[in-house]
Amino acid sequence: MLPAEGRRRVQIEGISPEIDGGRFPIKRTVGEEVRVEVDIFADGHDVVNGVVQYRPETSYEWSEVLLTPIVNDRWQASFTVSELGRYVYTVLAWVDHFISWRRGIAKKIAAGQDVSVDILIGAQFVEEASDRATGNDSVQLKTWAATLRSIQQEDAVILEQKILSPDLLALMNKYPDRKYATTYDKELAIVVDRERASFSTWYELFPRSCGEPGKHGTFKDAQARLPYIADLGFDVLYLPPIHPIGFQFRKGKNNTTTPEPDDVGVPWGIGSEAGGHKAIHPDLGNITDFEEFVAKAADYGMEIALDLAYQCSPDHPYVKEHPEWFLHRPDGTIQYAENPPKKYQDIYPINFETEDWQNLWEELKSVVLFWIDKGVKIFRVDNPHTKAFPFWEWMIGEVKRDYPHVLFLAEAFTRPKVMYRLAKVGFSQSYTYFTWHNTKWQLTTYFEELTSYPAYEIFRPNVWPNTPDILHEYLQHGGRPAFMIRLALAATLAANYGIYGPAYEVCENRPVKEGSEEYLNSEKYQIREWDLDSPYTIKHLIKQVNKIRREHQALQSNKSLKFHNTSNEQIICYSKQTDNFSDVIIVVVNLDPYNTQSGVVSLQLHLLGLNPYQSYQVHDLLTDAYYTWGEHNYVELNPFVMPAHILKVNPIR
Amino acid sequence: MLPAEGRRRVQIEGISPEIDGGRFPIKRTVGEEVRVEVDIFADGHDVVNGVVQYRPETSYEWSEVLLTPIVNDRWQASFTVSELGRYVYTVLAWVDHFISWRRGIAKKIAAGQDVSVDILIGAQFVEEASDRATGNDSVQLKTWAATLRSIQQEDAVILEQKILSPDLLALMNKYPDRKYATTYDKELAIVVDRERASFSTWYELFPRSCGEPGKHGTFKDAQARLPYIADLGFDVLYLPPIHPIGFQFRKGKNNTTTPEPDDVGVPWGIGSEAGGHKAIHPDLGNITDFEEFVAKAADYGMEIALDLAYQCSPDHPYVKEHPEWFLHRPDGTIQYAENPPKKYQDIYPINFETEDWQNLWEELKSVVLFWIDKGVKIFRVDNPHTKAFPFWEWMIGEVKRDYPHVLFLAEAFTRPKVMYRLAKVGFSQSYTYFTWHNTKWQLTTYFEELTSYPAYEIFRPNVWPNTPDILHEYLQHGGRPAFMIRLALAATLAANYGIYGPAYEVCENRPVKEGSEEYLNSEKYQIREWDLDSPYTIKHLIKQVNKIRREHQALQSNKSLKFHNTSNEQIICYSKQTDNFSDVIIVVVNLDPYNTQSGVVSLQLHLLGLNPYQSYQVHDLLTDAYYTWGEHNYVELNPFVMPAHILKVNPIR
Repeated sequence: MLPAEGRRRVQIEGISPEIDGGRFPIKRTVGEEVRVEVDIFADGHDVVNGVVQYRPETSYEWSEVLLTPIVNDRWQASFTVSELGRYVYTVLAWVDHFISWRRGIAKKIAAGQDVSVDILIGAQFVEEASDRATGNDSVQLKTWAATLRSIQQEDAVILEQKILSPDLLALMNKYPDRKYATTYDKELAIVVDRERASFSTWYELFPRSCGEPGKHGTFKDAQARLPYIADLGFDVLYLPPIHPIGFQFRKGKNNTTTPEPDDVGVPWGIGSEAGGHKAIHPDLGNITDFEEFVAKAADYGMEIALDLAYQCSPDHPYVKEHPEWFLHRPDGTIQYAENPPKKYQDIYPINFETEDWQNLWEELKSVVLFWIDKGVKIFRVDNPHTKAFPFWEWMIGEVKRDYPHVLFLAEAFTRPKVMYRLAKVGFSQSYTYFTWHNTKWQLTTYFEELTSYPAYEIFRPNVWPNTPDILHEYLQHGGRPAFMIRLALAATLAANYGIYGPAYEVCENRPVKEGSEEYLNSEKYQIREWDLDSPYTIKHLIKQVNKIRREHQALQSNKSLKFHNTSNEQIICYSKQTDNFSDVIIVVVNLDPYNTQSGVVSLQLHLLGLNPYQSYQVHDLLTDAYYTWGEHNYVELNPFVMPAHILKVNPIR
Repeated sequence: MLPAEGRRRVQIEGISPEIDGGRFPIKRTVGEEVRVEVDIFADGHDVVNGVVQYRPETSYEWSEVLLTPIVNDRWQASFTVSELGRYVYTVLAWVDHFISWRRGIAKKIAAGQDVSVDILIGAQFVEEASDRATGNDSVQLKTWAATLRSIQQEDAVILEQKILSPDLLALMNKYPDRKYATTYDKELAIVVDRERASFSTWYELFPRSCGEPGKHGTFKDAQARLPYIADLGFDVLYLPPIHPIGFQFRKGKNNTTTPEPDDVGVPWGIGSEAGGHKAIHPDLGNITDFEEFVAKAADYGMEIALDLAYQCSPDHPYVKEHPEWFLHRPDGTIQYAENPPKKYQDIYPINFETEDWQNLWEELKSVVLFWIDKGVKIFRVDNPHTKAFPFWEWMIGEVKRDYPHVLFLAEAFTRPKVMYRLAKVGFSQSYTYFTWHNTKWQLTTYFEELTSYPAYEIFRPNVWPNTPDILHEYLQHGGRPAFMIRLALAATLAANYGIYGPAYEVCENRPVKEGSEEYLNSEKYQIREWDLDSPYTIKHLIKQVNKIRREHQALQSNKSLKFHNTSNEQIICYSKQTDNFSDVIIVVVNLDPYNTQSGVVSLQLHLLGLNPYQSYQVHDLLTDAYYTWGEHNYVELNPFVMPAHILKVNPIR
């Protein structure tokens, strides 16, 4: 069967970014650029031309930006997204007969050939363009057509001046003949988030540990901690689940199955007679207290991130109200969480294969809407990889359609493809393997992957040197220098990072037992008191690093990250910069928490916008020292003093 | 909006092969394998399982082959295509609750846990499967369910024997629960050609040069040449256009614009009063002569490939009958071919932007159908990159739907993306840059690209050391050894290759002028006589190399091509083998046509199915010499004697 229109001669292929053949959107924040590359070409020798078209999904008007050739039939164009929500983009390309004609006649004039007939052909193109144009442009084009028709072959100088006039070209380029233009067969999507999606500084806090010694802390107590956290420079305060905690099979201190009567339980064991995912633990306060807490945090420039853990304690109201949402065993009991032979009898997972999945989905979504209504804009989602992907894609899509400012962080520590898929189905940020990557090789290969296509288009890493679940042996053994090193790395490798505090700033490093990544006396199972004023804390470094992050745009994005060679496996060096090199930061870190390390870092200066034949100044933002550097530079870092350089580059003009 | 079914938990992504998001088919020949790789995974810890489904496009019945895991959520499955025409394939995957259960209960049994309830869960899965099964399988499954229900927890040995029985697993695997299976959202296509699409040996011949000295040759004369060409081992005989040649602006010998009255003209200047693309040049004979020629060639095991050159001389009947198919200039003349400042006044290109494009397309297709009716099965298409892509995709698709045995070779020497796109829109084979790639680096990088994904899925290289248009300077200066070298390379690097003869076998190497790739006294413009019996010809080598190709399956495909290190830039070494290593060929060529070269070739023996710690025998199929080889082997090749080894590997058992 013949196609509807057989004269669309331009072929469009190899477009990037395009995720899984257009199945998933890319991610951007307001004001960010989208650089599109694409192969466009036609048969024969005619000149092709094209545009990237883009628009907010809700708009009917395309904006356009002209493609420019790179090499080998590859073209590129960039545009900026300025509104929250979803955008779409595509490519339109056509054979440009006017430009083909112009190129041909130029060669003929140069060869002294008779072009009198060619001039008439050109005049015809110009006349046709004048019909497509309006107003003054149309008049001008008509005049140009007349001018061309009046040209005498004899006058070679006039020929060139008139026919090849850049003014005529510019005017013609405004009205190309797109009669047989080809449109790329897909509209590709962009999710545009607010800036905090790509640049954020997180602090995880158990509010129940903020009370008077020996007492269960409340939101009011936690409120008193806000100035401290804000002063350290954090802008997202993440709370483990704040809901009522179940009693059946409650865990005791250090994860024992024989709790004391006054043990507080695990916040992730959600639900009791006091309520479920829409209720607040009575010991923390009530909804009004929570709303006040959210408002106070906002006064300090901080947002509250809630924990979204879709699972139930055996006491959760859902268990009675919606037994069909859980898997039942032949003996009539409900299936608790298992990873055979391990059993987690305090947790009932939700069965996403329930017959009643539609109502389940709606209810789970209503939990998010409930907290959005209470002022929450960020959700840290617990173990999203154990809940069905189609649910996430639907739920996040629905929520962000109405509340495009809401962000979701995926707490998935699992296989790489599962982690990337969660990002693709809609999570705004993602936990990473950073916690387990401590060597130069690990950090380099992993962050090179994360900042390469296509990962960087979809996956926004949020890196954590510790969490309540993970105290890496590097921290267990490396002492205070290890905490300084991992802080410096997290804060400069990734624009989104967080710490679980105050465990981090006080350098809590005791595991429950040798070989375990669990904390001794973990806050997951009990209330902890922390000495925030000990001289051993690294709070001053944290404050300083967060200040540097705020003041230096280079550190507020990951896309420019480049690693540089060093002569010592214990010394890592990398750089970040703004697109126009207005802010260039070089980071050097000694990865060895036990010894002073020295060596030579060799910088790829052209990547930093620097002249390789000229020296430049670097200003250490941690120590306020100044150095004159070149391509190869000696460094020496004592981890007990300061294990890192964060260097601002000052070119010498 | 909720999806229709939210319980399809398996995610399917990263499928290969998949060309441009499924826009284009891959290529295979009858009996070839398709190896599909895909990422499949679900949320949580359940076991997933899946199949590749495939069928001829005209069938409604899917065949299936089970996926097996490779690593990191990547799975693979292979199937064989057995019918000519188009196939489609896709992936279906599901969460396998029975296998998940089996894995879990095995761990619980090993840990000595009570599994009495778990056994009942398993029995339920088996009962459900018995409902899906039929006949004896159903009965057996019912028996298994009863057996499970009767098991006593106490007897651990029986527990393992029964519950983990491989028989039960095999039976259950026949009836998996696919209620919530996910189907990949695309059906991907395969074009299945006959074997000659991937393994063919071409000889290009001007029939008009086959006559008595001084006379225009006919098909009858060319018929007399058939035994000679067949004896050299060729199986495709390609003829430049056999149609009437125009007179207006006819070119004379050596491309002069001042022809003598008896100059025969260029076969590509198609069309005169004697007819166009469906007519035969009167001096060659008539349609009956042609049909007889095709039949005779078939008797010698050779197919005739016709030249499909969609362009017209000013005398072509189309010019009068369909003036609207050409571009008209303001002075009333028809636009001849140009590449400013060059003019080709003897050629009118077809205007694919004509208003009458539907009729044009149908007429062009009818040309192909006309010659198919006369017994032609292969078309060598002249400059397809100067005709619109949508036309090719439509025309080749239409023709192959009804005549799936018909093959099209794209004679496009242009930019890489244009060449690949022509392959994607339907061309069965493609000319390459081989002719210009003469160094080890050029050959290695180019053939590695051609045999890598995705190129090898869509682009079948047909390599030519010479053509009537291209006499590379390597051949101009390298003498007889150069012709031997390029023959050996072409015939062993690519399963499809061809030569333009007799120019090639007689080592014709005179250019029309220094710096040109055109032949002196080119057969394009005049009749040539060739001395086929001169001792200077390389016909014996050609015959021997073609015999080796026929006898060695390893050389009949490109996908196993691997390059091996050599210590000398003038010595290239590569290997090809069958999948099961039944035929392994190592080729070593001296690329220097002037000097004996020696060096050490270092083989990746594991790629050849050889034990790296054991020697093996190689048999030189060109010289009949035998050598005992290991990993590193000294070679020395005198180009005046024999510039290549073609070594058959004989492992020592």
